[in-house]
Amino acid sequence: MAIRVTVWGENVHEQKNKSVAELYPKGMHTAIADALNRDTGVQAGTAVLQDTEHGLSAERLAATDVLIWWGHAAHGDVSDAVVERVCDAVWGGMGIIFLHSAHFSKPFKRLMGAPCNLTWREAGERERLWVTSRSHPIAAGLPDHFELENEEMYGEPFGVPEPLETVFVSWFAGGEVFRSGLTYKRGAGSVFYFRPGHETYPTYYDANVQRVILNGVKWAYNPAARIADPNEAPNVPVEHALEPIVERGLRLHHDGEEGFR
Amino acid sequence: MAIRVTVWGENVHEQKNKSVAELYPKGMHTAIADALNRDTGVQAGTAVLQDTEHGLSAERLAATDVLIWWGHAAHGDVSDAVVERVCDAVWGGMGIIFLHSAHFSKPFKRLMGAPCNLTWREAGERERLWVTSRSHPIAAGLPDHFELENEEMYGEPFGVPEPLETVFVSWFAGGEVFRSGLTYKRGAGSVFYFRPGHETYPTYYDANVQRVILNGVKWAYNPAARIADPNEAPNVPVEHALEPIVERGLRLHHDGEEGFR
Amino acid sequence: MAIRVTVWGENVHEQKNKSVAELYPKGMHTAIADALNRDTGVQAGTAVLQDTEHGLSAERLAATDVLIWWGHAAHGDVSDAVVERVCDAVWGGMGIIFLHSAHFSKPFKRLMGAPCNLTWREAGERERLWVTSRSHPIAAGLPDHFELENEEMYGEPFGVPEPLETVFVSWFAGGEVFRSGLTYKRGAGSVFYFRPGHETYPTYYDANVQRVILNGVKWAYNPAARIADPNEAPNVPVEHALEPIVERGLRLHHDGEEGFR
Amino acid sequence: MAIRVTVWGENVHEQKNKSVAELYPKGMHTAIADALNRDTGVQAGTAVLQDTEHGLSAERLAATDVLIWWGHAAHGDVSDAVVERVCDAVWGGMGIIFLHSAHFSKPFKRLMGAPCNLTWREAGERERLWVTSRSHPIAAGLPDHFELENEEMYGEPFGVPEPLETVFVSWFAGGEVFRSGLTYKRGAGSVFYFRPGHETYPTYYDANVQRVILNGVKWAYNPAARIADPNEAPNVPVEHALEPIVERGLRLHHDGEEGFR
Repeated sequence: MAIRVTVWGENVHEQKNKSVAELYPKGMHTAIADALNRDTGVQAGTAVLQDTEHGLSAERLAATDVLIWWGHAAHGDVSDAVVERVCDAVWGGMGIIFLHSAHFSKPFKRLMGAPCNLTWREAGERERLWVTSRSHPIAAGLPDHFELENEEMYGEPFGVPEPLETVFVSWFAGGEVFRSGLTYKRGAGSVFYFRPGHETYPTYYDANVQRVILNGVKWAYNPAARIADPNEAPNVPVEHALEPIVERGLRLHHDGEEGFR
Repeated sequence: MAIRVTVWGENVHEQKNKSVAELYPKGMHTAIADALNRDTGVQAGTAVLQDTEHGLSAERLAATDVLIWWGHAAHGDVSDAVVERVCDAVWGGMGIIFLHSAHFSKPFKRLMGAPCNLTWREAGERERLWVTSRSHPIAAGLPDHFELENEEMYGEPFGVPEPLETVFVSWFAGGEVFRSGLTYKRGAGSVFYFRPGHETYPTYYDANVQRVILNGVKWAYNPAARIADPNEAPNVPVEHALEPIVERGLRLHHDGEEGFR
Repeated sequence: MAIRVTVWGENVHEQKNKSVAELYPKGMHTAIADALNRDTGVQAGTAVLQDTEHGLSAERLAATDVLIWWGHAAHGDVSDAVVERVCDAVWGGMGIIFLHSAHFSKPFKRLMGAPCNLTWREAGERERLWVTSRSHPIAAGLPDHFELENEEMYGEPFGVPEPLETVFVSWFAGGEVFRSGLTYKRGAGSVFYFRPGHETYPTYYDANVQRVILNGVKWAYNPAARIADPNEAPNVPVEHALEPIVERGLRLHHDGEEGFR
Repeated sequence: MAIRVTVWGENVHEQKNKSVAELYPKGMHTAIADALNRDTGVQAGTAVLQDTEHGLSAERLAATDVLIWWGHAAHGDVSDAVVERVCDAVWGGMGIIFLHSAHFSKPFKRLMGAPCNLTWREAGERERLWVTSRSHPIAAGLPDHFELENEEMYGEPFGVPEPLETVFVSWFAGGEVFRSGLTYKRGAGSVFYFRPGHETYPTYYDANVQRVILNGVKWAYNPAARIADPNEAPNVPVEHALEPIVERGLRLHHDGEEGFR
C-alpha cells in the first residue's frame, strides 16, 4: 500500500508573478508531488487554496496519510475551520510536513503554540544544510551537507518550541544560521518542519531537497488507524475502575456526564 | 524585588456550589495567592473571570512576572482576545503555571498545540505523586513522594507534547497513572503544568502542593526584560548583512517591506 | 531482508535456580528469540555470557541490526572490551534494547552516562503499563494499557536522562510508578529501555510484552550502512574549506595531524 | 552565600607553548576564575592536572558547587578514579560546565554516553554565535549574536545526545555550523557544554564569553543538598509498601539483600 500524500499549495505567486510561473508552470505543489510520485511507495496528489474548502474536506483528510503544506502570501485567507480540521487530523495520527514560509501558516502556528518568527533576507545567497543527527531517517542517503546556491535567508532566533530532534542546521553566506529541519509530535501525529523553498528559486527541483521531503513523508507516516476523536476525554466511572475503589467525598459531576470544556 | 504573581481563578463553582464555597470561602485563587504571599520573595494578587477583561488587561499582564491559571466549568467564556494577549505575554517572557482542569483552558491548549485530553474519574480516591527528576528546582524541599488522600483521577494518555522534563508522575488508587508535573518553553516564556487541585477537595491547603506551586513560580520567573514584540520577523537587508554579500536572483519583496503573514 | 536480531542473555539464573530453569528451560534469551522469529520480518539468534567473547565478536555485532540485552546477577562479569565494542556498534548505527534488570548492565550505564538506579521489591505484585505516547510505533497494536499479574516492582526516581519520548508508565499495586518504556539516541544508534521481565515470572511469554519487543526491534532498526568509525574527528584543512578563507593566527597542530584525544 | 566554583585546567600548553603562555601567563583556568570572581555571587578557585589527585579530592568536590573543565592535549592522563568521582558528584547534584576541547575529555564522554566527535580546523577564522533559545538564563544580557574574530572551527555532526535545549549555534567563516551551547541533566546534576576557547586565541578575555560562563555557573548551580549516594538502589520490603500487598510467587532475593549490580 502506497503512502497517500496531499501536497497543499497556496498557489498565489505562481498565478501572479511571471518569474515564479516560469519556474513552476504547474505550481510548486505539483512539482513537489511529481517528485514524490517517482517513488513507488508514495501516491501524491495536490490541493490548493482556491479549491472548495481549500481542497481539504474531511473526506480528503481522511484519505491523506501525510499532508505537505506550502504557503506564504495568503496565510490569512485560510479558513479557521479548515485549520482546526487539519489539526484534528494531525492529532488523530496524520503526518504533516511544513515547508519554508509555512512557518507562519495558521496550522503550523496552531500546532506549535509559539510565535514561529525569524529574521529573513531575500538576496539569493548560498545556503548550506548540515545534517546534525547521524543516520536520522529523514537524512537517509544524504551527504553530511548539501548546498543550495540561491535561497532566501532565514535566521535565528526561530521562535519554535525545542524539537524532539534537530535534523538540519543551515549556514548562510550573509552570516546567519538556522535550525532548518525539526521534528515534533502533536497528539498521535508526527510533524516535520523543513526550511528551504523560496518560490523564486528552483529549490524543489534539487535532488537533495526532493530526497529530504520523500524521507520526511516516510518518517511522518503512521500506519496505525486514525484516532476517531482525538479530543475525547472519557469519564471512567467508579464501577469500571481497574482496581476496586469506593467513592468518597463530594461530586460535581453526575453519572454519565461529559465533563467541562 | 519580589516576583509579581497573578493567580487567575474562574471563580464559578465557588459561587454556585455550597461545598466548594465552604472549602474556599474567598475562592481558590485567593487561597493560592495567600499561600504564596507567605514567601517574602513573592507578591501575589488575584484576577477572576468576572472582572473586566477577566482582570487581565495589557497593563496587568505587563506587571505580572508569573501567571497562574485555574479554570474548569467556564473555559468557553474566556475571551479569545484575552487568550491571545496572555500567549503574547508568555512568548515575550512571562512565566505561566496551569493547574489541574486548566489542561482544557484556552491558553493551555493554545500554547501546547495539542488536544490536552485525558481520562478522568471523580471519586475522591488517593493520589500519590512521585518525583521523577532528582533535585529539580520545582521539587525542592519535597520528599521523594507525597500523597493527597482525596483527589479527582486524571489518567493517561495525556494529550500533550513531550515535555522538556517530566517532574512528577501520579499513582491513583483506581489503577491509573498520570504525568502530573511537566515543563515547557514557548517563545521566551516558561510553562509548568501541575495536575492536582479539584475544587471539591482541600488540595490547595496541602503543604506539599503549596510548595510545588511556590517552587514553580520561582522556576518560571525570568528576570530578563519582556520582549516588546515577540512575533516580530524583521527583514535584514543586504546592506546590513554581517558578511559582505551581493544580491542575486529574483526578489518578491520591496525594500522596507514587512513580509507576509 | 529480515532484521537481524541478537538476543543476549546472561544465562545465570536459568542454570542455577530450579524455578527459573522450569519457566525458561532453554533460557530467557531463547524464549525472546523464539517469539521474535514468529515474525517473518525478523531473524533472531542468541548469545550468552558464557560464550567466547560473550558471543559478541566484532563479526557478530557487524551482522546484528538490533541487539537485545538481558542481564541481572552477573553484570560485573561482562568484559569491558566487549562493552566498548557494543557501544561502538550502537554509535555506528546498531539498534539496542535493554530489558528489565539490564538497567544496571555495563552497556546501558555506559550509554546513559547516568546512575540508572531505582527502588525495587520482589513480591509478585500486579504491574499495569499505560501507553503515554499515542500511536507510537513501539505501542502499535496494543490497547491503551495492559497488565502483568506478577512482576517485580521498580520505582521512581529512575536515574536516567530525560528520554526522547516516554512511551510507557507503569502502575504497581504496592503504590509506586515507573517510566517503563523510554527512547534515546546515542550516536547513530537508537536505544529503547523496557522495564518488565523478572526471571521468576513468565513475562516473556506474555503476548503484549512480546509485541512491545517486536515493535521495539522494528523501531530501533536503522537500514543505513553502519558508520565505519563512529569516533572519527576529522581535520578539515584550510585548503579544503567550503568557503574560501585565509589561515590566521597561531597553530598548535601540524598539517595532517590527528588531533588530541 | 557565594556559589563555589572550581575551574579545572589541564595546564599543559600553557607550560609548553610560548604563545599560549604569553596569552595566559597564569593559565587559562586562572583567567577564567579571575573573570568569575568579579561577580560577588561567585567564589572561584582552580585545580590542575598536575595537582595531587588532579586537585579533585573527594573533599574538594564536596566543596564545589559547579566544576568547569578545560582539557585538550592530555585527556588520557586523567585518572579513571577521578573521572568516576567527578561523575558521582554530578549525579549527586554538582553542576558541571565543559569548555571547548573538553568535548573529548573523559568525564564529558562518560556523562554523554556518546562519541562526542566533530570536525575541526585550526585557522583562526571568524566564529559568530547565535542565541537560539530566547531569554534562556545562560544567554542573559547577551545580544542576539556575538563574534569571535579568531577561533578554531568545530563542525557538525557533533556526536552528542539531543540536548534538553540548544542555546547557541555557531556560524564559521569557512562554511560550517555547530551547536555550540547545549544543556543536559545527568542524575541530579546540570551539565552545560560551551564551544569556544582554543588556547591560542584570547577567547577567555572576551566579555561575551565571560558572561556566558558566569551565566552557565548560575544556571548549573543547584542549592539542594548533594545526594549522599547517587547510585543507591534501595529495596522496599513488602511490609513497608505504601499500599497493602501480599507477597506472591517466587523470590530470588533474601530479606535485607542488596540486589545485584
